[in-house]
This record gives sequence, structure tokens and C-alpha cells, in this order.
Amino acid sequence: MATEGSQETAREVAAFGWAAKDSSGHLSPFHFSRRPTRDTDVKIKVLYCGICHSDLHLIKNDWGISWYPLVPGHEMVGVVAEVGSGVKGLKVGDKAGVGYYCNSCQTCEDCENGLESYCPEMITTVCGKDKDGTTTYGGFSDIMVVEERYAVRIPDNLDLAGAGPLLCAGITVYSPLKYYGLTKPGMHIGVVGLGGLGHVAVKFAKAFGARVTVISTSAGKKEEALERLGADAFLVSRDPEQMKAAIGTMDGIIDTVAAVHPIAPYLNILKRHGKLVIVSAPNKPLELHVAQLTLGRKLVGGSCTGGIKETQEMLEFAAKNGIMADVEVIPMDYVNTALERLAKSDVRYRFVIDIGNTLEPTTTS
Amino acid sequence: MATEGSQETAREVAAFGWAAKDSSGHLSPFHFSRRPTRDTDVKIKVLYCGICHSDLHLIKNDWGISWYPLVPGHEMVGVVAEVGSGVKGLKVGDKAGVGYYCNSCQTCEDCENGLESYCPEMITTVCGKDKDGTTTYGGFSDIMVVEERYAVRIPDNLDLAGAGPLLCAGITVYSPLKYYGLTKPGMHIGVVGLGGLGHVAVKFAKAFGARVTVISTSAGKKEEALERLGADAFLVSRDPEQMKAAIGTMDGIIDTVAAVHPIAPYLNILKRHGKLVIVSAPNKPLELHVAQLTLGRKLVGGSCTGGIKETQEMLEFAAKNGIMADVEVIPMDYVNTALERLAKSDVRYRFVIDIGNTLEPTTTS
Repeated sequence: MATEGSQETAREVAAFGWAAKDSSGHLSPFHFSRRPTRDTDVKIKVLYCGICHSDLHLIKNDWGISWYPLVPGHEMVGVVAEVGSGVKGLKVGDKAGVGYYCNSCQTCEDCENGLESYCPEMITTVCGKDKDGTTTYGGFSDIMVVEERYAVRIPDNLDLAGAGPLLCAGITVYSPLKYYGLTKPGMHIGVVGLGGLGHVAVKFAKAFGARVTVISTSAGKKEEALERLGADAFLVSRDPEQMKAAIGTMDGIIDTVAAVHPIAPYLNILKRHGKLVIVSAPNKPLELHVAQLTLGRKLVGGSCTGGIKETQEMLEFAAKNGIMADVEVIPMDYVNTALERLAKSDVRYRFVIDIGNTLEPTTTS
Repeated sequence: MATEGSQETAREVAAFGWAAKDSSGHLSPFHFSRRPTRDTDVKIKVLYCGICHSDLHLIKNDWGISWYPLVPGHEMVGVVAEVGSGVKGLKVGDKAGVGYYCNSCQTCEDCENGLESYCPEMITTVCGKDKDGTTTYGGFSDIMVVEERYAVRIPDNLDLAGAGPLLCAGITVYSPLKYYGLTKPGMHIGVVGLGGLGHVAVKFAKAFGARVTVISTSAGKKEEALERLGADAFLVSRDPEQMKAAIGTMDGIIDTVAAVHPIAPYLNILKRHGKLVIVSAPNKPLELHVAQLTLGRKLVGGSCTGGIKETQEMLEFAAKNGIMADVEVIPMDYVNTALERLAKSDVRYRFVIDIGNTLEPTTTS
């Protein structure tokens, strides 16, 4: 007769993916298990998963918070394969996705206000400790089991591969545009940094009706910013003449740069009452010249991904406006090369793994 | 027959006050003239004028922008003595005041939106160059002539001496409480620094229905903060235990401290989505740890006095709620001693000069 413990084990659902086994930066195939689909859960067959820069940090334990094996991936999209008896909003066959977090306390003010991303007990999709004590494993894997509350529906007309990165990069720039009041048509919005976040920031700001200027340290990305992404202007931040001419011209700036960098020039090019929103987190303090804030009633604000309700809203907005990430779709076994290229910012603009077609189960563990 | 030039001179109106003649910090009696009351002007007989910390900076040319003779004072209140033919909102005998600025372009977006204090051509009441090329002289003087647009009506039930500092200190803290959404009843508001600005910030925040905590480097002002000003709590920022217990408790903080100081502890004690508003301007950059902003969607904002419409609104609010500055009324000839005491923060909380009763015209120039 099976013990209680072995019954529990028997109920676990086999899953397969690629994991980091240590901080070397190398991923390899990994067999693990996910929980069975509970009443309020959905099981998603993962088809695509984006590679976010934070995956790279977690894999290498850059933040000192990782443990192994670690299955990366929090920009996963796929098809609902099973639903619990209490699931109301999703059914088998629906396209669905999971982003940066897969659980939260569900009782705090933020959870109640649809701001789960700020819940102090928010549980990340990768390398988190779920409420039942299990380690959370991300979307570089064949299946995902998650409470319905943390799954979003992917609108039918959104390309699945291009939709994946919207679940992290997309909502991370959409949410502050909304929160800081930077969505009024005709506004002039600057976007600092043209990577995974920056390139979708350009698209969302354009869709809101803004005039969008991409701000970059060099002119290297000018052509693609203007012609491929549809930005209206390009500003080289290391060109004093260009920066001088831009003083007092922008209503808001979304700054996506993670490296330590001066923000005084960006506060300068804001109009009075303008807002500089930083969505990345340089690991050393930046210099803040307070007079720049007081004299023009400007602000520096932060933002960190978004809640589930807003993520769903963002996806509907993206579908309506034809917005998706520009992606380079890669097979699963290319992931280690992709990580090396990502570390050098050698990607336009997001790697997305074709999990559905290229994740081949093996006997390797 | 008088020349055009001498006619102009003949039309000037004799005025008398106290001025700095150089950057020594010393004021002395000064005869000068003001323009005659034009169609849209009011002439105010000054009765009281507050001494703001920025008067001290201007007198000593700390900012390198002063010229002499310099008549300080931008917290002046008195009685309307004469009105031009086009003046509609004020009449002789009304109580009126003039604050930090006495003119602006009147055509920019900020002027049109009642945000004259942010007009790039805003003309300060002290040591400014007015549109007609004349030097502006402040309220340490017997009369003031100003366009009606830049004069506010002092509600009848406001004590005139206590109302003076509201025109600068008061609006400087009232305006950001409003702009940054920190006026909802039940909010927990911190006030850093208990000087001229801080003490009225406590009163306004209390009147909006907030729980107010005064934050200070030492416990020295605890009793007066709680008992005299009606704060609900007192937090010593140099006490690690107290600061630790306060983490995540405040909706907003008004930081009035002009000295260079760390803001990380204040961002720590804000709740998620909390706002740190700095209304002073330290002369060196502060350190900004961006992760504090991103993880909790917090912001650091600035604010610089307020527009005329909002200043009038603030005065009505103050009258309704019995708010005025706590002042030490002094005679005109005490001003040099007062400036010395102000430099040492030896005042509870604002010096106000009794211009009406103690400014004695002399023949000294």
C-alpha cells in the first residue's frame, strides 16, 4: 500500500525543459515535475518562450538569489491543455501565457487592486518558492501549471512568438506609460535604450499617439529606429549639440538602460512638469540634481512590470494596434549560443525559443 | 518745459524701505521709487512681510544672481491703497498680498494654466528685472505696486502677520500636496525638516485629514511638533530602530531640507507607490538608488511654489481651517539681528516684520 508521500509523488506530472545546473551560464536538458492541475489551475502546453535579460542574470546568479536546477523563462505563451473544475475564464484550446510571476498573496491591497507585481509575497515564475514549498520552474519547458488568476489570454490575432515578450518587456513599458499619464495623443515621448524593452516602448508610445524620439548613445541604431520601428526622431545622447537642441522638448521619457548612467541630461530635455520613468535598475546609485526637479516640477519615477488585469489590457491593446515584439525565433538547442549573444546585446530585439517544435524530450537529466 | 524723461521721473512714486547695499548681509534704510499705479495695477500699503530663507541667500548673493541695492521680502501683505481703472477683483481697503513673483510672460502654456511660477519669464519680486527694465524691489518697504493678476486677496479672518508666510512657505508645500495627490483623508504624510516650510506643511497635511509624522535628525523638536503643531508622530531619522520600524508606512513625504542629505531612508519608509517630494534644492547632487523606485513604483518629485490661482485657493483653505504660520513679529530695525538668527535657524518658525507700525521713514538713503 502506498504511503501518503508516495501518493503525492504519484500525482506529480512529468515535465521536461532546459535548466541551469549551476552558475556557469550553461543550460542543459532537465526532467522535473509539475503539480497536477488543481481546481483553479490551468495547464498550458508551452509553445514559445522569450529570453529576457533577467533570465541571464538569474542563470549566472548575478543577483545572488538563484538556486539550481533553475529553469528560466517568464515570457511563455502556448495553448491551454487542461483546466480545473473551478476555472471560469479559460478553456482547453485557448491561447494563454504566463509572465514574470505565477503567484502572490491575493489578500494585500496591491493584489486586491490588480497590482500583483508589487505584492510583497509575489512569487516569481523562475526560481521562486511557491506557497506549497516547491520551486517554481519557468517556461523553457514543455508544460506550465498555474492558477488561472496568473494566466493571461493571448488574443487570437496576435502572433504567438511575437506575443511572448509582451508578457514581460511589453507590460514593463506599457504599465508606466499609463500610470505616469504619458498616453495622451500628441505627447512627445523619449525612449532611452533600444533593446527588448525599448523597442516595444516605441511601438506602444506610437500607438498611444505620441511623437516618439529614440535616445541612444550612438547613431548606430538610427536607421532601424526610424524605419523599422517607426520612431519619429533619433537623438544621440553623446552629441552635445543635439542634446542642447532637445532641451525642454519632451513630456516623458522611458529609460530602459540597466547600466549606471547620468540622468541629468534626460531631466534637461524634459519639458516643465515632465516625467522620467526608469524601468531598469542600475546596481549603483545615480546622481540626482534636485534643482532639476524643483524648478520644473519634474519627477523621476520607477515601475516594475504590471498586474494581471493590466497585462490582459495591454495584450488587447497590442492586438488592436498590431503590436508585437520583433523577435528572432530559435530552436531550443540554440539557447546557450543565444545567451552568449544576448550578453553582448546581439539580438534584434528578443530571442524567442520555439518550444513547441524544438524541445525534444531526451533521457538526459 | 519738462522733457519726456523728466516727466517720467515726475510720475514716479516715492517709496521707502530697507535694502542690502552689498553682499555683507547688512540691511539699512533706502529711499527709492515705484511706478505709478497703471490701469491694471494695484498699489498695496504693506503692513507685514515675512523673512524667507531665500531672502538671506539673495542678500548675501549666495546664488551669484544678486545686484544692489536689493530690497528683500516676498511674503508681503497689506491693504489696497489704490487701484487702476481696469482692476476688477480688488478695491481700496481690501487686504492683499504679493508672493515670490510679481510678473510673468502671461502667454505661455504655464501662464495660461495658472502655473505662473513655472513660466520661463517669471519675474521675481526681489532682485528681478521687470518687463519695463526696472529692478523689482520686495516687501521690506512701505508700498508695492503690482499688476492685479499677481496680487492675492487675503481672507478677512486670516491674521495678517500669520498670513504673510503663507504666500511663499505656505503655497510651496500646499501646491505639491495637491499636485502629487497627497491630500486624501487618512493618508500618512511625513514632513522632513521643521522650519518655515515644514511647520506649515504639518498644518496643511493635518487639515487635509492626514496622519502626519514629523521627521527630524534629532528629538529636539519632538514636543513642539506634537503639542504645538499637532503632528501625530515624530520620527528621529538618525535612530536606526525607529527608521526600521517605519519602513513602508508613508504615502508621501514632503522634504523641506536644503542641505545635502540622503534620501534612501525616506524612500524606504514610503509605502509602495509612495511619493517623495522635495521642495528645496540642495546645491550638490543626491544619491538615487533606482531599485528603490522600480520595485515599489515610487517617485521622487520636485515642486517650486505655486500659481496665483492656487495661492488664492490655498489662502481660502487656510482661512477655512484656521491655518497660519507661527510667527515672531519683529520691528523693522530688528531685521539685521533677525537675519543673523535665521542663519542659525533660531526662529519659531518665521520672522515677520511689522512694516505698518515700525518702518519709519528717515532721510537716510
